[in-house]
Amino acid sequence: MQDIRDIERIAVIGAGLIGSSWAALAMGHGLNVSAYDPAPGAEEKFRHTVERAREQLAALGLANTGQYQFTNDLDEALQGVDFVQENGPENESAKRALLSRLDAELPPEIIIASSTSALLRSTIVADCRNKRRVIVAHPFNPPHLVPLVEIVGEDEAIVDRAAAFYRSLDRRPVVLQREMPGHVANRLASALYREAVYLVEQGVASVAEIDAALCNGPGLRWALMGPHMTYHLGGGEGGIAGYLAHLGPSQVRRWQSLGTPSLDEDVQQRIIEGVAEEAAGRTIAQLEERRDEGLLALLRARKLVSE
Amino acid sequence: MQDIRDIERIAVIGAGLIGSSWAALAMGHGLNVSAYDPAPGAEEKFRHTVERAREQLAALGLANTGQYQFTNDLDEALQGVDFVQENGPENESAKRALLSRLDAELPPEIIIASSTSALLRSTIVADCRNKRRVIVAHPFNPPHLVPLVEIVGEDEAIVDRAAAFYRSLDRRPVVLQREMPGHVANRLASALYREAVYLVEQGVASVAEIDAALCNGPGLRWALMGPHMTYHLGGGEGGIAGYLAHLGPSQVRRWQSLGTPSLDEDVQQRIIEGVAEEAAGRTIAQLEERRDEGLLALLRARKLVSE
Repeated sequence: MQDIRDIERIAVIGAGLIGSSWAALAMGHGLNVSAYDPAPGAEEKFRHTVERAREQLAALGLANTGQYQFTNDLDEALQGVDFVQENGPENESAKRALLSRLDAELPPEIIIASSTSALLRSTIVADCRNKRRVIVAHPFNPPHLVPLVEIVGEDEAIVDRAAAFYRSLDRRPVVLQREMPGHVANRLASALYREAVYLVEQGVASVAEIDAALCNGPGLRWALMGPHMTYHLGGGEGGIAGYLAHLGPSQVRRWQSLGTPSLDEDVQQRIIEGVAEEAAGRTIAQLEERRDEGLLALLRARKLVSE
Repeated sequence: MQDIRDIERIAVIGAGLIGSSWAALAMGHGLNVSAYDPAPGAEEKFRHTVERAREQLAALGLANTGQYQFTNDLDEALQGVDFVQENGPENESAKRALLSRLDAELPPEIIIASSTSALLRSTIVADCRNKRRVIVAHPFNPPHLVPLVEIVGEDEAIVDRAAAFYRSLDRRPVVLQREMPGHVANRLASALYREAVYLVEQGVASVAEIDAALCNGPGLRWALMGPHMTYHLGGGEGGIAGYLAHLGPSQVRRWQSLGTPSLDEDVQQRIIEGVAEEAAGRTIAQLEERRDEGLLALLRARKLVSE
């Protein structure tokens, strides 16, 4: 059984935005990276994204002693690696074939983790011979800053080992007891977004104001605690039990009043115009820059607060 | 027309947790407060909550030069005030009667703002003669720390004036174009919570792990930007238009797969046990303390990030 302390070199298979961010995170923690991406121009983009991410990680005080090698040869990328993070396209048959090839080529003790956000583990491991060592480890964008990693696997020992590995990268693994399309976090996000789109559809508030309501209200609290704990504190002295006893029925009534909008052309157009208004001329790169600065500031702030 | 710069004294009608927090916020910004609450022991609790909140506001650098008077006589509380924040019980007929009495006793230029979270403005102003000056201004707990104030009114000039007043208290007003049960933010929270309960019901992850997934993933990002802007940055170079074009259909499929759990006794029990496990022996007071410390740290962090 491989010890996570022996992991010194990881392969990042698929080195786009997510893969680059994984690579920077690993190097920030002193690991070496074999990055593979066959797309034309991928190396240039990878280098650029990694440089920026490593600067951000340096600001968090990480050592950044890891090195990378970039290749468009998959066999070369897999030489001598101790862990594999796969970030290929979100296409079922492509992912299935890629994982099967990784599984065939790698020694059996190496964990192969897929960053898939939308596909089910059971589907994408179908063609692997050694399915147990293939897990889902889904990060949140950008993975070098957002701590969450959602893990789905079938072998408890392997899942535990992977969780320990991600903890060693200062991530917060969340282990699912069973697989579910969208895992946990994107399902929560999707449920919230459905209502956000409904409020746009119904003309209750503008896109920018709905966004502002979230990040100046519940979103701010949710950077500290999840929904159950939030209602525990919203229940007064009775806590969550008091909340459910007194306000459970009104919560259920609220659920019944939630919308089921259609994302038709008219609604899409209103969202696109609303976001343009909210962006107020700032480019995506500028907005990303601001998000990342904000995430760094929040992460530093959270570290100062005692557990 | 009253100028918000002339507001020097506000009445806080109903001085429980929300009212105390509003009072502390106003005093932090140099305003004087008339606090009214007829409940036995209310003054003692009010003093305690206000003291703690003022310490927190001092840590944010607020002047805290305001003073308060506490009374259990409503007429006395309304003498000489320039703005009224009502925080009575969330009971439709009680709220309706209280607002009608405030409306009858106050000069017509004074804005009466109700903190109601669950009631509709049209319902609670029904017995007021001067309905236009009665608005909903719903804060998020705790109001002296969480910036959001959701505003519902019918007179644009009055709504604008109230929004300017809340901005002068460093709040972020969000004006609704029309009333909606639960306003905006609690509907978003409720939509997310329905899915969180579904994931508990389906045994996908524990209560603590679902909470961790939110606050280490999307919740952290939502402290900085709302859902529309988040998908704008999730769409790559095509932004929200690219996101909707390419991933809109999968978002709609995800919506169709979201759960409609029942909050039955079994599920309630699992939530209560799960929260107890997550709280790990910490009392509600300790958890609140940590939340407030965390909010203060996040607010300071956000201030450092350029708009």
